[in-house]
Amino acid sequence: MSMTTDRRDFVATIAGLGLAGVSGFAGLAVPAAADPQGGQTPQEKQQPVEALGRVPWPYRPLDADPVAQRAFLAYQRGGCMLAVFDPIVRGVAERLGAPYTAFPFSMFAYGAGGVAGWGSLCGALNGAAAAFALLSPQPGPLIAALFAWYETQALPDFLPGGSRFQNVTAVAGSVLCHASIAHWCKASGKRSNSPERAERCAALSGSVARKAVMLLNAQAAGTLAVPPPDPTTTGCLGCHGAQGTLGNAAGRMSCAPCHTPSELASQGHPKV
Amino acid sequence: MSMTTDRRDFVATIAGLGLAGVSGFAGLAVPAAADPQGGQTPQEKQQPVEALGRVPWPYRPLDADPVAQRAFLAYQRGGCMLAVFDPIVRGVAERLGAPYTAFPFSMFAYGAGGVAGWGSLCGALNGAAAAFALLSPQPGPLIAALFAWYETQALPDFLPGGSRFQNVTAVAGSVLCHASIAHWCKASGKRSNSPERAERCAALSGSVARKAVMLLNAQAAGTLAVPPPDPTTTGCLGCHGAQGTLGNAAGRMSCAPCHTPSELASQGHPKV
Repeated sequence: MSMTTDRRDFVATIAGLGLAGVSGFAGLAVPAAADPQGGQTPQEKQQPVEALGRVPWPYRPLDADPVAQRAFLAYQRGGCMLAVFDPIVRGVAERLGAPYTAFPFSMFAYGAGGVAGWGSLCGALNGAAAAFALLSPQPGPLIAALFAWYETQALPDFLPGGSRFQNVTAVAGSVLCHASIAHWCKASGKRSNSPERAERCAALSGSVARKAVMLLNAQAAGTLAVPPPDPTTTGCLGCHGAQGTLGNAAGRMSCAPCHTPSELASQGHPKV
Repeated sequence: MSMTTDRRDFVATIAGLGLAGVSGFAGLAVPAAADPQGGQTPQEKQQPVEALGRVPWPYRPLDADPVAQRAFLAYQRGGCMLAVFDPIVRGVAERLGAPYTAFPFSMFAYGAGGVAGWGSLCGALNGAAAAFALLSPQPGPLIAALFAWYETQALPDFLPGGSRFQNVTAVAGSVLCHASIAHWCKASGKRSNSPERAERCAALSGSVARKAVMLLNAQAAGTLAVPPPDPTTTGCLGCHGAQGTLGNAAGRMSCAPCHTPSELASQGHPKV
């Protein structure tokens, strides 16, 4: 079952459950006429609370650069996942008004440092993927485009206002927080717990947020281009992937950071 | 800044922003007396929409086994991350009533297969961590306890009703989807795209959901025990971690799956 099919079926199910669960609440949508006070758009007054649960939320293009700067600042409050999710989704929520503005944004502090410091998936990517899931009818291609870009680009490629240190870039070669930080520490000569590294992750959150908005805007405009898969990883999956003769592996992230030539040789793997 | 401090500061900030953003909406809370109709608890009628945005949501213990079975079934609709997040948070939301039931649950389909099939963080763990972030005042220790359990236990340890295949267990040795599936494929002799592997991930989602509820309940009761860190990983971090002489790495996930003895030797690493 494809991601898209999953989503469509699931959203239909959820919409049904959601409406049943909150049917007694539908009366809470206040007609615009009920409050003659100005200053709020009719849209803000007309959205019933269950609109919040209908995924995707209605998206219209955002301006990417201000979102990047807001991500850099939000990092200080809740780490990398929140830093990317918050300014993107809040930008949409503020345009749509209540009840969207009541979304519990702060929950996404959990993804900081590859989830509570565990070093797994980069929180900036986790936050962008969560935002895509809430704002796009087809998050899969957006995730593929963003993750492939992150693995291969010298980042951060965003210079935030208010930064204290000189920008040092590095290619993460991986979507994992641990590998991303290790490569940057090597390139910069700085420690993993240094203020320079923290600022790098804040700026990286800005880079990821900006790229995520550009991808969302491109998809909305019908111009999204998803890069071809990494040829080395494609080579591995030729045998180990779902369609390969071995078929004993799952995933699309780059194989090379963990399956090094020496590790492969030690397991008697044919030369690649 | 610790995760806990982050959250507290951030929740305070967000609560302020949230209230400002939806202040015109506060009148939507319908007093119980306004609707004499029965069948809904006063609680369902009294929650203003902005209650949704206040993290953590009020948690009271759930029954773990039914949540596990619901996770097994939910996997079919939206994959592993949704499978774990949905029954835990929906169980709480249904008890609290609207507007909690209007949360956009279906967004968490994004984490399936380590995020849209990329094989990074196991989606069941990503979903549990997201649920912890929404339901606990201190998600960090819950994440640490769950992730350490997942790395070391033979899983799935939950036998769902309605399963079609014999249960095969394996120790993932990692919080990453790709490694978790590879170890299970080796133990079972099944392919990564087999129906047996899909059922294994559905049952594993049940295992993770049950464990997550047990941990939430233990924390609520003041009896949460967080296991000591993995000694091998602790050894690595002794030099490479934030406090070590090298200080060039971040993370708490197990080092061994990627940094194998042969890979370390090839880099001239002293014998460990």
